[in-house]
Amino acid sequence: MKDSFISAIRKNWKKKKTMVCVGLDSEYSKIPQFLKNKYFSCEKTILEFNKAIIKNTFDLVCCYKIQYAFYGALGEEGISALRKTIEYIHERHPEIPVILDAKRNDIGNTSEAYAVEVFDNFGADAATINPYLGKDSCEPFLERKDKGVILLCRTSNLGAGDFQDLITNFNGKKMPLYQVVATKISRDWNRNGNCCLVMGATYPKQLKIVRNITGDMPFLVPGIGSQGGYLENTIKNGIDSKGAGLIINSSRGIIFASNDKDFARKAREEAIKLKRDIDKYRYN
Amino acid sequence: MKDSFISAIRKNWKKKKTMVCVGLDSEYSKIPQFLKNKYFSCEKTILEFNKAIIKNTFDLVCCYKIQYAFYGALGEEGISALRKTIEYIHERHPEIPVILDAKRNDIGNTSEAYAVEVFDNFGADAATINPYLGKDSCEPFLERKDKGVILLCRTSNLGAGDFQDLITNFNGKKMPLYQVVATKISRDWNRNGNCCLVMGATYPKQLKIVRNITGDMPFLVPGIGSQGGYLENTIKNGIDSKGAGLIINSSRGIIFASNDKDFARKAREEAIKLKRDIDKYRYN
Repeated sequence: MKDSFISAIRKNWKKKKTMVCVGLDSEYSKIPQFLKNKYFSCEKTILEFNKAIIKNTFDLVCCYKIQYAFYGALGEEGISALRKTIEYIHERHPEIPVILDAKRNDIGNTSEAYAVEVFDNFGADAATINPYLGKDSCEPFLERKDKGVILLCRTSNLGAGDFQDLITNFNGKKMPLYQVVATKISRDWNRNGNCCLVMGATYPKQLKIVRNITGDMPFLVPGIGSQGGYLENTIKNGIDSKGAGLIINSSRGIIFASNDKDFARKAREEAIKLKRDIDKYRYN
Repeated sequence: MKDSFISAIRKNWKKKKTMVCVGLDSEYSKIPQFLKNKYFSCEKTILEFNKAIIKNTFDLVCCYKIQYAFYGALGEEGISALRKTIEYIHERHPEIPVILDAKRNDIGNTSEAYAVEVFDNFGADAATINPYLGKDSCEPFLERKDKGVILLCRTSNLGAGDFQDLITNFNGKKMPLYQVVATKISRDWNRNGNCCLVMGATYPKQLKIVRNITGDMPFLVPGIGSQGGYLENTIKNGIDSKGAGLIINSSRGIIFASNDKDFARKAREEAIKLKRDIDKYRYN
């Protein structure tokens, strides 16, 4: 039987000794021109680009993350490239789970349909979910024990504080909204042990507070690299009791490290560099 | 030049005298069997189902709303049916705008890609957006002056209160999160006059408060019919200063009114009934 998302991640943290997640944010306009000339169709170009990145990074990652928006923006061709990328990873590297970063959210039977989309149609092992609509809206995801449910908590953008930092009254205690989100999810939503949180690397202080709230719940940490997150503080503040706990995602900094024929080799170099940097801070 | 989403809606409220929105939540498993036997492919079946509903309701609606999840769950075929449904409405009924209910949300250039997906790839006139990530995350949508940006405020599900009702401290005033969302959007996000809010019909009291906060901002109101919203209170509490202001959506109650060959006629009957009920409360 296949491992659940959380088991697979924990196994990769331990055995492969890596918390690196390569983000396949394969925006068509940024893919090297020589690949576009060679493969012509959008679908084939993106798929071959992804395969080259995967071939050069699979031994370095605990998982891959695919950003839905860059595929969805291309319509059917992009959707097809997305599906085939996940199939390719599952076939070649069954030990590497795939996160579909699609930030889905809706209510009732619509939310059910989204769970079918991401887990059954695309075959993703985990999905990012927006919690604003409340627990019942997330149930179709939460009840999928084998899948990871990665809920937005404190995001890495400048405007994240507009609502996430508002001080709320929660059971008589004053705390910012993102801490209420973390508290509810870890105490009440995680009965199947399949919840994770999105915690932006740009706010290491918040990372520490949320680590204290949630115990060893895995965090997906975007914002390293192009968004300027500080790796050292992120790791020191975010690490769990077993010295792991983080899925540290880098997308553009790795996959678009070069715009030329050496793009896959350069991607590997950047992934090695990120892994090395993580290892440095992790064991200090 | 084509009207903006908001202009088109206001025109339809005034000239067609209708606030009805038919939701094309065309879940494949619920489509009448005889259509599946006739058209065989998912894509063709859904498209022909939608066309029949549109032919029988176009004179009764201010807009259509398409629920992305039911199409996305089918992969490429569903996506293609979605695109062709919007094309069909634009070709036959250019005065009827189409809302893509996809509750998109992300940050930076990912959010840009989502705006391309919903507005350029699918050609929707408006999209539903989750505001949890803050204003900067919504900018790629807000800057599209001609398009409607329909932000989640108070949703119609039972668990909506988990976060939306939390009492926050906002500029020294205590108010629930959904009211902060409404306040920020109407004061600060609406510079292009293209914002609308999702306000569930199941909570008419909240509708009144948010109407007072936002002036004549249009509300998309789901939850009428299958979710048990009360039409009378919804209209009395939600109507704007011109006696309109609401996009009252009904999906399953209309499109799946019958499971047989009379499905389109029955859908029309239900749409007429909803329009008549709205008119009754609107002018009392």
